[in-house]
Amino acid sequence: MSFKRKIAVVITARPSYSRVKTVLAAINKHSELELQLIVAASALLDRYGSAVNYIEKDGFTIAAKVFNVLEGENLTAAAKTTGIGILELSTVFDNLKPDIVVTVADRFETMATAIAASYMNIPLAHIQGGEVTGNIDEKVRHAITKLADYHFVASENAKERVIKLGEDPTMVFNTGCPSIDLAEEVINSKELPFDPYEKYGGVGAKPDLTQGYLVVMQHPVTTEYKDSRKHIEATLEAVYKLERPTLWFWPNVDAGADGTSTGIRAFREQHQLPNVHFFKNMEGKDFLHLLKHSDCLIGNSSVGIRECAFLGVPVINIGSRQNRRDRGNNVVDVSYNLKEIIAAIQDSIANGKFDPSNVYGGGDAGQKIANLLAELPLQFHKTISY
Amino acid sequence: MSFKRKIAVVITARPSYSRVKTVLAAINKHSELELQLIVAASALLDRYGSAVNYIEKDGFTIAAKVFNVLEGENLTAAAKTTGIGILELSTVFDNLKPDIVVTVADRFETMATAIAASYMNIPLAHIQGGEVTGNIDEKVRHAITKLADYHFVASENAKERVIKLGEDPTMVFNTGCPSIDLAEEVINSKELPFDPYEKYGGVGAKPDLTQGYLVVMQHPVTTEYKDSRKHIEATLEAVYKLERPTLWFWPNVDAGADGTSTGIRAFREQHQLPNVHFFKNMEGKDFLHLLKHSDCLIGNSSVGIRECAFLGVPVINIGSRQNRRDRGNNVVDVSYNLKEIIAAIQDSIANGKFDPSNVYGGGDAGQKIANLLAELPLQFHKTISY
Amino acid sequence: MSFKRKIAVVITARPSYSRVKTVLAAINKHSELELQLIVAASALLDRYGSAVNYIEKDGFTIAAKVFNVLEGENLTAAAKTTGIGILELSTVFDNLKPDIVVTVADRFETMATAIAASYMNIPLAHIQGGEVTGNIDEKVRHAITKLADYHFVASENAKERVIKLGEDPTMVFNTGCPSIDLAEEVINSKELPFDPYEKYGGVGAKPDLTQGYLVVMQHPVTTEYKDSRKHIEATLEAVYKLERPTLWFWPNVDAGADGTSTGIRAFREQHQLPNVHFFKNMEGKDFLHLLKHSDCLIGNSSVGIRECAFLGVPVINIGSRQNRRDRGNNVVDVSYNLKEIIAAIQDSIANGKFDPSNVYGGGDAGQKIANLLAELPLQFHKTISY
Amino acid sequence: MSFKRKIAVVITARPSYSRVKTVLAAINKHSELELQLIVAASALLDRYGSAVNYIEKDGFTIAAKVFNVLEGENLTAAAKTTGIGILELSTVFDNLKPDIVVTVADRFETMATAIAASYMNIPLAHIQGGEVTGNIDEKVRHAITKLADYHFVASENAKERVIKLGEDPTMVFNTGCPSIDLAEEVINSKELPFDPYEKYGGVGAKPDLTQGYLVVMQHPVTTEYKDSRKHIEATLEAVYKLERPTLWFWPNVDAGADGTSTGIRAFREQHQLPNVHFFKNMEGKDFLHLLKHSDCLIGNSSVGIRECAFLGVPVINIGSRQNRRDRGNNVVDVSYNLKEIIAAIQDSIANGKFDPSNVYGGGDAGQKIANLLAELPLQFHKTISY
Repeated sequence: MSFKRKIAVVITARPSYSRVKTVLAAINKHSELELQLIVAASALLDRYGSAVNYIEKDGFTIAAKVFNVLEGENLTAAAKTTGIGILELSTVFDNLKPDIVVTVADRFETMATAIAASYMNIPLAHIQGGEVTGNIDEKVRHAITKLADYHFVASENAKERVIKLGEDPTMVFNTGCPSIDLAEEVINSKELPFDPYEKYGGVGAKPDLTQGYLVVMQHPVTTEYKDSRKHIEATLEAVYKLERPTLWFWPNVDAGADGTSTGIRAFREQHQLPNVHFFKNMEGKDFLHLLKHSDCLIGNSSVGIRECAFLGVPVINIGSRQNRRDRGNNVVDVSYNLKEIIAAIQDSIANGKFDPSNVYGGGDAGQKIANLLAELPLQFHKTISY
Repeated sequence: MSFKRKIAVVITARPSYSRVKTVLAAINKHSELELQLIVAASALLDRYGSAVNYIEKDGFTIAAKVFNVLEGENLTAAAKTTGIGILELSTVFDNLKPDIVVTVADRFETMATAIAASYMNIPLAHIQGGEVTGNIDEKVRHAITKLADYHFVASENAKERVIKLGEDPTMVFNTGCPSIDLAEEVINSKELPFDPYEKYGGVGAKPDLTQGYLVVMQHPVTTEYKDSRKHIEATLEAVYKLERPTLWFWPNVDAGADGTSTGIRAFREQHQLPNVHFFKNMEGKDFLHLLKHSDCLIGNSSVGIRECAFLGVPVINIGSRQNRRDRGNNVVDVSYNLKEIIAAIQDSIANGKFDPSNVYGGGDAGQKIANLLAELPLQFHKTISY
Repeated sequence: MSFKRKIAVVITARPSYSRVKTVLAAINKHSELELQLIVAASALLDRYGSAVNYIEKDGFTIAAKVFNVLEGENLTAAAKTTGIGILELSTVFDNLKPDIVVTVADRFETMATAIAASYMNIPLAHIQGGEVTGNIDEKVRHAITKLADYHFVASENAKERVIKLGEDPTMVFNTGCPSIDLAEEVINSKELPFDPYEKYGGVGAKPDLTQGYLVVMQHPVTTEYKDSRKHIEATLEAVYKLERPTLWFWPNVDAGADGTSTGIRAFREQHQLPNVHFFKNMEGKDFLHLLKHSDCLIGNSSVGIRECAFLGVPVINIGSRQNRRDRGNNVVDVSYNLKEIIAAIQDSIANGKFDPSNVYGGGDAGQKIANLLAELPLQFHKTISY
Repeated sequence: MSFKRKIAVVITARPSYSRVKTVLAAINKHSELELQLIVAASALLDRYGSAVNYIEKDGFTIAAKVFNVLEGENLTAAAKTTGIGILELSTVFDNLKPDIVVTVADRFETMATAIAASYMNIPLAHIQGGEVTGNIDEKVRHAITKLADYHFVASENAKERVIKLGEDPTMVFNTGCPSIDLAEEVINSKELPFDPYEKYGGVGAKPDLTQGYLVVMQHPVTTEYKDSRKHIEATLEAVYKLERPTLWFWPNVDAGADGTSTGIRAFREQHQLPNVHFFKNMEGKDFLHLLKHSDCLIGNSSVGIRECAFLGVPVINIGSRQNRRDRGNNVVDVSYNLKEIIAAIQDSIANGKFDPSNVYGGGDAGQKIANLLAELPLQFHKTISY
C-alpha cells in the first residue's frame, strides 16, 4: 500500500501541457508523490495538435482520458464543454480519489476541474493565478482563485493580487512560471538543433531559415470572437506584404477558432504565400529553440510575454489578449492594424534581441511546486481574509 | 416587436424563490423589462417542497424548466448537478436570448447559471454577493462575484467586500436584501392569519400555538456533511426535552440532505414527539407570519440572520453555517451541543422580542434591483481594479 | 501482460446484481477472463438498497462507479439518467478498453450500456432478452436485442423470439436465467437460516414468522406511473385486512417510485400495521430463503415468475408488469383490486406449495455464460437475417 | 387555445432535412397539426453545411436549437453526442409538450430523439425504418423500430421487414420516401436552372459543365472508420485520372469524418485538380437538378439508391454503406478499388440514363405522412406481436 500523496493534474490543451511539463516531471520523480495525469478536452484532439501524443511520447502514464469538447461556432459550446467536463471529471475524481487536484491557468474549461475538485472537498491547487489580461480569461482566472486552496503564481505582482483577492497569504507562493523551466534549457542554444519541416511536416512553402525568420501564433479572443476572422486577416496581410520567411502556428481551440482557421484557409486559397509554412504544433522545447533563433514572435500568445522575456526575443503583441499582463521590455503592443503591425515588425528586426528578464521566474518552478504539493497541509476549507 | 430588456432569472431552490419574489414581481411590473423565469434543480422537486407550485400559484409565467439534480449521498452529486445545469442552461439561454441573467445567492448549483451566462457573454447580475460564512458556499459566492458584471448586495459590509475583491465600485449596489421586502409586509401583523395545520398539512402532532411556539429549520452543512446526522440529533434531542410546541421544517437539498432527513426520520421512529409538527414547506409570507409570532427560531437558516433581524425575532443559531455573516443583536450563536442549545432557547424565551434592525435593508430591494436592471449599461467585459 | 479477455459488466440496480451474481463469480474464476465490474445508477444509492455494499461484501473488485441517477418525479428523469449514463460509460469504456460489454435485462438505464458499447464497436452481450411483458421495459428489451451481438436468454420461448427478431441463430443461447443458479442453492433449505429482523433491521412490527408469512414486493409500472399510488394502496389495504405476518420490501428506483413510496408512507401514518415489517433490501440468497419458507409472494416482481417457479412458491402477481412473461403454474394473476387480491392470497395459502419448474433454466446459467464469453468470436458487425 | 396536434420533428443533419422537407411543409399546411421544429447536432454546424440556414431560408420556424455534437476522432464522440442529445432533448420535450415526436432514418444521434420520446411516453413516429445496410446504421435503425409506435417506411420490402420485427401491422405504412417528393419536382427539368459556382461558392477549379460532369459524394463508414482515409483515396485517384469535370461534395459528420476530410485535403495539396470543384452543401432541390443533368453519381450516398432511381441517373456505389438496401437497376456496385471504380464510371457514361423506378415511392410521401400524423390514435404502449 502506498502512502504517497496522489496528485491529479488535469491537462486540457496543448499550451497548458507545455507550461506544466516540468511540474509533471518533478511530481513523477518526487518520492512522496504519485502523479495521476488526466488528459481532457482539446489536448486529445487531432485538429488542436494532439497534445496527448507528446505526453505519451514524453513517457508520462495517463490515468484517464476525458473527451468533452462540444463542437460549435458559438460561445454556447464553451459553456457546454465546461459542463460536460464537470460531469466527467467528478466521476474520474471519485474513482481515482486524489489528495490534491491541480488546475492550470485560465482557459475556460479549467473551470470544470476547479468546480469538480472544490465541490468534492478535494484540496485544489491553481498554477498561474493573479495575472491580468482584461478578457473572459480574467473572469475565469480570478473565479478559480476564489475556489482554490493553494496558489502557485508566476510573478510578484500576481502574488500581491491573489492576496488582495482575500486569499490566505500563507497559501500563496511565487514559484515563477514553470514554462520558464523549459526556456532555461534552451537559453544557451547556438543554432536550431532540428529541421522543423522534416520533424513536424506541416504544409506550405519551405523558406530558408538561415537568414532569420518570423514566427506567428495568434489565437481568437473570446470576447471578440465575431471579429476573429477580421483580426487574423490584418496579420495575414502583414506577413504577405513583408515577404520574409515565416513559420505560422495554428490557433488552439476556442469559441471562434473556426473564424480564425477559416480566415487562414481562405487567405491561402486567394494568395500565393511563397515564404510561409504552417505548423499544427510542435514540442514545447523545440518551439522554444525556434523562438530563440527567430527575428521576432508575432501574435497574441502568452509565450511572447513569458518565455520570450526570459529568452530576450522581440515580440509584436497584437490586440487585447495579453492586456495588462506583466511584461518585460521585449514586447511591443500594437492594434489589429496592418500598418502598425508592419512597422513594429520592421523596427523589431532592426533593433535585435534583448537581455533576459526574470519577471516570470528563474527556471525552477516545477521543482518548487512539487515540493509544496508534498508538504502543504491538506485542506479544502477557507474563508475570505477580510 | 418588443424592445423591452429580457431579464432571465434562474430559481434553483425554494429559499431562493422566497428571497427574490419581490424582485420577480418588480421586473414583471416594470414597463421596460420582460421577465424570463427559469425554474431548475430542487425548485422542481417534490421532496424539497416544490417551489414551482408556489411560483405558478403566485401567477408567474415559467419560460423553461430544467431538471438537473443528480441523486446521490456524496458530494459528487453536487458537482454533477452543476455540470448538467451548465449543459442545459446554455441551451435555454441560447433559445431565450436574454439581455441580462440574474443569479441568486450562493447555493452550489447557482454556479451553473453564472458560468453559462458569463461564458456566453451575457451580462450577469448577482444578488447577495460579498457576504461571509466560512463554508463551501463562500467559495461559490466569491467565485460568482468574479464572474458577475453587476452586484446587488444586501449590506454595507458586503458592498465593501465586493469592492475589495477588485470589482468596479460603480457596478456594486447596496440594494438591501429582497427577502426583507416581504418581512416589511408582516412586521405589523397582530396574530397568525391562518391555521398552519389546515393550510399546509404536514405530519405529526398538532400542538396548540396560542401560548407561543418554537420554529426549527436546520440544513446540513456541506463541508461537514458526514456529520449531518449527528448534528441534527442534538437539535432533535433539545426539542424533545423542552416539550414545547414546535414547528419543524424539512431541510432543502444538499449533499448530506439524506443524513439530516434520515436522522429526523429515525428519531421520530424511536421517540414520541407529542409537541412537534413537521412541515415540508410554506409560502414565504406565511412563514414570516409564523416567525413573527414565534418565541424563537432554532437552526442555521439564513432567515434567522436576515428577516428575523428586521422582525426582531430571537434566533438560536447552531453551528458554522452562518459564521461571519453580518447579524443583528437578535442572534445567539451556539455549537452542536445539547446543553448549550437548551440553555439558549430558555434564555431567549425569557428575554422576549427585539427591536427591528436595518442591517439587511429597508424593504424596497426588489424595486431598486428592477430599476437598476432597466438602466445599467449592458456589458460583459470587465477587468480587476488592481 | 495479460491476454485474458476483459469482460465489462455494468450493474445498475439491486435486482440486476442478484440476477447475475453467479455470472460475475464464474467470470472471476475463469482462467481466460478478467472481470471489469462497473457499478452505476441506483445500485450506488442508499435509498434503493445500496447494492454496491453487497457487491463489495461479496468480494468483487469494482473497476468504476458511475453516479447517473437524475432526481425527479416524472419520466424526464428516466431519459436524462440514460443520457448521463451514456456520457459517462463511454469514458469508462474508453479508459478500461473491454473486449466485451455485458448488459443485463431491460431496466431503462441498461440502454445506456447498450448504446455506449455498440456505438464504440465493442461486442455487446445481452442477458435475458426475448421476453415479453407489455410495458416500456419491452421497448427497451427488444431495442437492446437489436443492438446486441450475443444473446444469453433464459427460456426456449425467449430464444425463439430473439431469432424471430432477425438475430443470427448461432449467436442466441438459452443458458437459463442466472437467478436460478442461486435458487438452486436454497431449494433444499429446511428452515430460515437467519433472523431477518436482526440481520437486516428495517422498520415496523416484528411479527412471528414461525407459522407462515406473506412477502410483498411491488414496483411502480412505468407506463402507468401516475397511478402508482393508487395501485399500491390496493395491496396495502389487502395486507392490512388479512392481518397476517407480512414482510414488505421497498420498490426499486423508477419514474414513479415516489408515488409508490409516498403511498406506503402515507398508509403507515394513517394505519396501525401490527403485523407488517418493512425492509429496504436483502442479499439475494437470503431473500430466496425467505421466499422458500413463505406462504406466498405478492406484488409484481419478476422473482415471482422466475425463482419462485423453480422454488415452487405460490405467487399473487398483480397488474400488468409481468404480462406475457413465461410462467410456471405457481402464478395467479390478479388486477389492482382489493377483493381479487385478498381472495387469491387466501386460496393460495389453502393450496400450499408447487413442484419445481425448469421453465427458466436448471441452475448452471452463470457458468454457461462465462464459458461462452471466453469462446465466442469477438464481433460487433451484424445484419438482420431477413 | 389551440387543439392542433403538436408534432415535434427533430432534424440532426443536412441530409435528413432534405429527406423530410416535404413532410415539414405538409405538417405546416395541415389545419389540424402544429409543427415544432427542433434543429440539433450537425445540422447547426458550419463545417457540416449549416442545414439550419437552409431551414430558416425555407421559412420554417425553429422551436429549439440543441448543440450536442461532441468533438473527437473516435467512436466515443458518437456515443457522447447521443448521450448529450438525450439529456437536452428531454428538457426540450418537457417544455414543448409535443403530442407526437418524429425521428428520421438511422444516423447514430437519431437514437437520442427516440429514447427521449419513448422514455417520456410520447408517441414516436419513425420515418424510413425497415431498410437493410449491414453497418452500425442498421443496429440503430432496427433498435429505433423497436422503440417507435408508428412506422412510415419507404418500400414494400421495408414494410414487410418492420412487420417481421414484431410490430403491429396496422401501425406500419408504406408512404414511400419523402425525398422522392422533391425528385418529382425536377424530373422534367430540361437544363440546370442555376450556376452552381455562383450560387454556392465552394473552392477549386470551375470546369465547364455543358458537356456532362460527374458528381461525387462519399461518406465515411462507421464500422470501418479507421480506413476512411484509404477509402476516400481510391475515389480521389479515380477522379484525378479520369480528368472529367467533377463536382465533389464534402461528407457529413460521423466518427471518421476527419479521416475522410483529411484525405481530401491532403490529396488536394499534393495534386493539381484542374477539373474538380468542391462544395460544402447545396439545397436539396438544386442538388437534384445537378444530379438529373450529371453523367453519374459516384460514392456511397443513399441519394444514389433512392432519388437517383426515380430520376434514372446512373450510380457508381462504392463499398458497403448501402449494402442490401433495395435498389433500382441504375446502380452499379464496386469495391474500394481504383480500377473497378474507373471502369464502372466509363461504362456508365457509355450507357447513359435509365428509366424512372418507383421502388422508393411516387412523390406524395410528405402529404401521406402528415395525414397519418393527424389521424393516428395517440399511443405509446405496445407489445411484440409474437
